[in-house]
Amino acid sequence: MNQRPTAPADPAALSPAEARSLFRAGLKTPTSGYCAGYAQANLIALPRDLAFDFLLFAQRNPKSCPVLDVTEPGRTDASVFDGDLRTDLPAYRVYVDGRLTEETTDARAAWRDDLVAFLIGCSFTFEAPLLEAGIPVRHIEAGSNVAMYRTNRPCRPAGRLSGPLVVSMRPVPADRVADAVRVTSRYPAVHGAPVHIGDPAALGVTDLDSPDFGDPVEVRDGEVPVFWACGVTPQAAVMASSPAFAISHAPGHMAVTDARDSAYQVP
Amino acid sequence: MNQRPTAPADPAALSPAEARSLFRAGLKTPTSGYCAGYAQANLIALPRDLAFDFLLFAQRNPKSCPVLDVTEPGRTDASVFDGDLRTDLPAYRVYVDGRLTEETTDARAAWRDDLVAFLIGCSFTFEAPLLEAGIPVRHIEAGSNVAMYRTNRPCRPAGRLSGPLVVSMRPVPADRVADAVRVTSRYPAVHGAPVHIGDPAALGVTDLDSPDFGDPVEVRDGEVPVFWACGVTPQAAVMASSPAFAISHAPGHMAVTDARDSAYQVP
Repeated sequence: MNQRPTAPADPAALSPAEARSLFRAGLKTPTSGYCAGYAQANLIALPRDLAFDFLLFAQRNPKSCPVLDVTEPGRTDASVFDGDLRTDLPAYRVYVDGRLTEETTDARAAWRDDLVAFLIGCSFTFEAPLLEAGIPVRHIEAGSNVAMYRTNRPCRPAGRLSGPLVVSMRPVPADRVADAVRVTSRYPAVHGAPVHIGDPAALGVTDLDSPDFGDPVEVRDGEVPVFWACGVTPQAAVMASSPAFAISHAPGHMAVTDARDSAYQVP
Repeated sequence: MNQRPTAPADPAALSPAEARSLFRAGLKTPTSGYCAGYAQANLIALPRDLAFDFLLFAQRNPKSCPVLDVTEPGRTDASVFDGDLRTDLPAYRVYVDGRLTEETTDARAAWRDDLVAFLIGCSFTFEAPLLEAGIPVRHIEAGSNVAMYRTNRPCRPAGRLSGPLVVSMRPVPADRVADAVRVTSRYPAVHGAPVHIGDPAALGVTDLDSPDFGDPVEVRDGEVPVFWACGVTPQAAVMASSPAFAISHAPGHMAVTDARDSAYQVP
């Protein structure tokens, strides 16, 4: 096996094609902070017979499951992703009968022809606008993955799919929370405004230091935990339904698309 | 057969339940102007095997096909429609192998258990806000149906579904066109801002006096024809794919929902 590439010095400056090339070559890293100005997406690929339930689940839970694109049958690219969805993400998870069987940087061996792949908006997309607005993003500063939590809020079910809302959390200085709401509200297709601000317990999150996915981040004095709907929500619902087969991205290890952030911005 | 009810004196003042009761009793009328403040919806009910293609078509053409609700299997109500979708619209069209076989005010005899029914946003929803803004709506003044046209703009296909964008047209005084854009932009789930303003020929519409659906309306001196994406678009695409079976509303004869306009309003 060839040597894996090392992380780039300035991931924000990479083009999506450059980043995908590194991931294709084996670089395994969370993608937060990569390719500033380009939208990132959650991936979930399902057998055709579950595709309607999934798309309906997304339609009924648009805040957590904004669908950016869906592949044509038998294809592994998409209109917003000029690459190979089987290789060009940094890491994948393969599920058989609802159980995680493999985490891999190359999903070609596991991929099947009957899969329909969905790209779901990701809140990493609005992190560049947050930074531009002078709002710090702790997990980018720390070089870690974003912290994600299962909540006690059920999604609206669809067919065989049901599950809790999953959220991502970013600590925001109290005097910038309103700005964070304003900035992210302009990106409804990538989760938009926060779903919850403050008290984690009200969401059923008992310990911020123990996220269900990703890495914990420090919440400093004067900062408020701000929670956004997360694209791991549909993945959690799919897994809860124990599909015969599924492939997803590994949480935080997203599809970097060719779509500009601005394409998902509303006035 | 019982006598059909006559049209109410003030349709805007009816509650959705009152309007549905009249339609259930056989009143056949376009619903523009009915139940001010409540969202109206296009109906299309399809066999389960076409449901994924349809939902994907809607996802890919959100401006013309905003999905408000989808029924659960075997049910004939919906979360935004506390009535019977088989009887509570003023008129239906039944299609067999893609051909219109029947227009009826009661779809119970034709309905099938394997149908999935979709409610698609309708621009009638933002007519009350237009009127509140002092922008006249000609077809309401005239007591006629809105004028709808097939355009030369193809929708993005999905599976077996493809077809042209269908638009509704309202003449707007030139000095109120910007206001009409502003008002309707706030309702993206019911077609939102116009897709085209002015020159019908650029849309492939050669004769405003001969709409493809609904009734012609007068465009007076000083008025500009303003075109909005129309919920007949998905119906036209479904029909072009010749499904074995489908039931839709008759154009202009919408499902009056229990959802307030404001539920679909963005800031």
